[in-house]
Amino acid sequence: MIEGPAARLALAGDQAGARRTALAELDAARRRLKPVGIAHIVGAGPGDPDLLTLKAAQLLQEADVILHDALVPEAILNRARREAERVCVGKRKGKGRANWAQADINTELVRRVRAGQTVVRLKAGDPFVFGRGAEEVDALHAAGLAVTVVPGITAALGCAASAGIALTDRRIASAVTFMSGHAAPESAGGHTRVIYMASSEAAAVRDRLLADGVDPATPVAIVENGTRPDERVSTGRLADLARLAAAHLAGPSLIIVGEVAARAAAAREPLAQVS
Amino acid sequence: MIEGPAARLALAGDQAGARRTALAELDAARRRLKPVGIAHIVGAGPGDPDLLTLKAAQLLQEADVILHDALVPEAILNRARREAERVCVGKRKGKGRANWAQADINTELVRRVRAGQTVVRLKAGDPFVFGRGAEEVDALHAAGLAVTVVPGITAALGCAASAGIALTDRRIASAVTFMSGHAAPESAGGHTRVIYMASSEAAAVRDRLLADGVDPATPVAIVENGTRPDERVSTGRLADLARLAAAHLAGPSLIIVGEVAARAAAAREPLAQVS
Repeated sequence: MIEGPAARLALAGDQAGARRTALAELDAARRRLKPVGIAHIVGAGPGDPDLLTLKAAQLLQEADVILHDALVPEAILNRARREAERVCVGKRKGKGRANWAQADINTELVRRVRAGQTVVRLKAGDPFVFGRGAEEVDALHAAGLAVTVVPGITAALGCAASAGIALTDRRIASAVTFMSGHAAPESAGGHTRVIYMASSEAAAVRDRLLADGVDPATPVAIVENGTRPDERVSTGRLADLARLAAAHLAGPSLIIVGEVAARAAAAREPLAQVS
Repeated sequence: MIEGPAARLALAGDQAGARRTALAELDAARRRLKPVGIAHIVGAGPGDPDLLTLKAAQLLQEADVILHDALVPEAILNRARREAERVCVGKRKGKGRANWAQADINTELVRRVRAGQTVVRLKAGDPFVFGRGAEEVDALHAAGLAVTVVPGITAALGCAASAGIALTDRRIASAVTFMSGHAAPESAGGHTRVIYMASSEAAAVRDRLLADGVDPATPVAIVENGTRPDERVSTGRLADLARLAAAHLAGPSLIIVGEVAARAAAAREPLAQVS
């Protein structure tokens, strides 16, 4: 614009004409911009509206459309801005409501993000604990679209606090497993393990899991300083756990063991921003 | 006061005297009131300040004092009101910082709540997942003091979202276990199980756990509509699970199996308010 028609008018002393021309050029540029859509896969928490995260509350204010589970209460949906479109995609078990098939939800997410909308996919609890979040992320990745994932208070944490039950207690419980009513995790084999604060004991963790019969080729991921600006992630196989962990002794680290850990490396590139 | 000295002055036409007397009476009443303290055991989430819950952010604004883990970042502590006292009680593993013994933290909580303070005990992650929240709740209960527990995004959920790893995925992982680096849960026996959406399949869940060798006398709790105003909790033994679950078929329910579940009934009465 420094050398464009507006600049020439300004140099010629026609300030009003320069301004008119500059504004017209900006308008034209804005029309040429394709709208850029994005999907946020957001955990709504266990039901109490005060248990939304600040991030979720902020995204509800930014969304053009909310695709929400039937389980998300009205008090949470009312935090969306007034102009936002709301679409209930169901998932309430056996309630005879409109239930969308997962494939249809995936298609709708892709269609709306492609159309330039800011979409919040609002799920009860946490998207990555019995939330089918991975399938929606995969669909958006496959279409080359931007997606972020915002964790939520999963039902187990909300119910535990509410009922006064500590899920772990060093006096009586050193581990907690979340499973679905349908699955027999041990027999099905698909069983993720998350080990807290274990980088300095990675060799012992590896040995214990191998002794439990876990395949040494099982994918593992180490997340150091997770969710912080200095987050670092490594991935590999259970057999290599001690070597991988040696690079993560500075900050608090979490070890994830199971087929799901293989997604870490694959997912990092296409994710526009994950918060 | 309608019949007190201020009223008599007012009836006698001495409005200024009546006002003075009334204010003096209010001041005296205020001095007689003992301040009522309360402790809020609050999860600060995994580190990203935007992953605080709305409830946690609100309580940070109300607290007289924040007793916080060393792992809680400055950006989160800065959400406390300016006048609030901040006490770092440590718990950063092997960093050589001031680390308080758990017994000292319990004593300090009790002392401050007794003195009438509104105390936020701010923990990294969630208070009831490797957070020793149960020990602090027990200390406050034992002293007859008010305590609430506010869940937080536990590190596993935060890191999973951030690294793009779904902890469960119906295609490859039907369960997730959180354990600490120190514990061998299977061998130690102390192992909590949380079963999602399972009330309608309680008999099958019971049979599967019994087949896994879980003791039929293991405590169980069922939390229906957890964290919502219509929450209902039942407790019993694994052997009775199907009978207990029959009363919880209306709303979404969660089944908690393990020694920790026995705390549910015990905790409900003394807890002033749990959110």
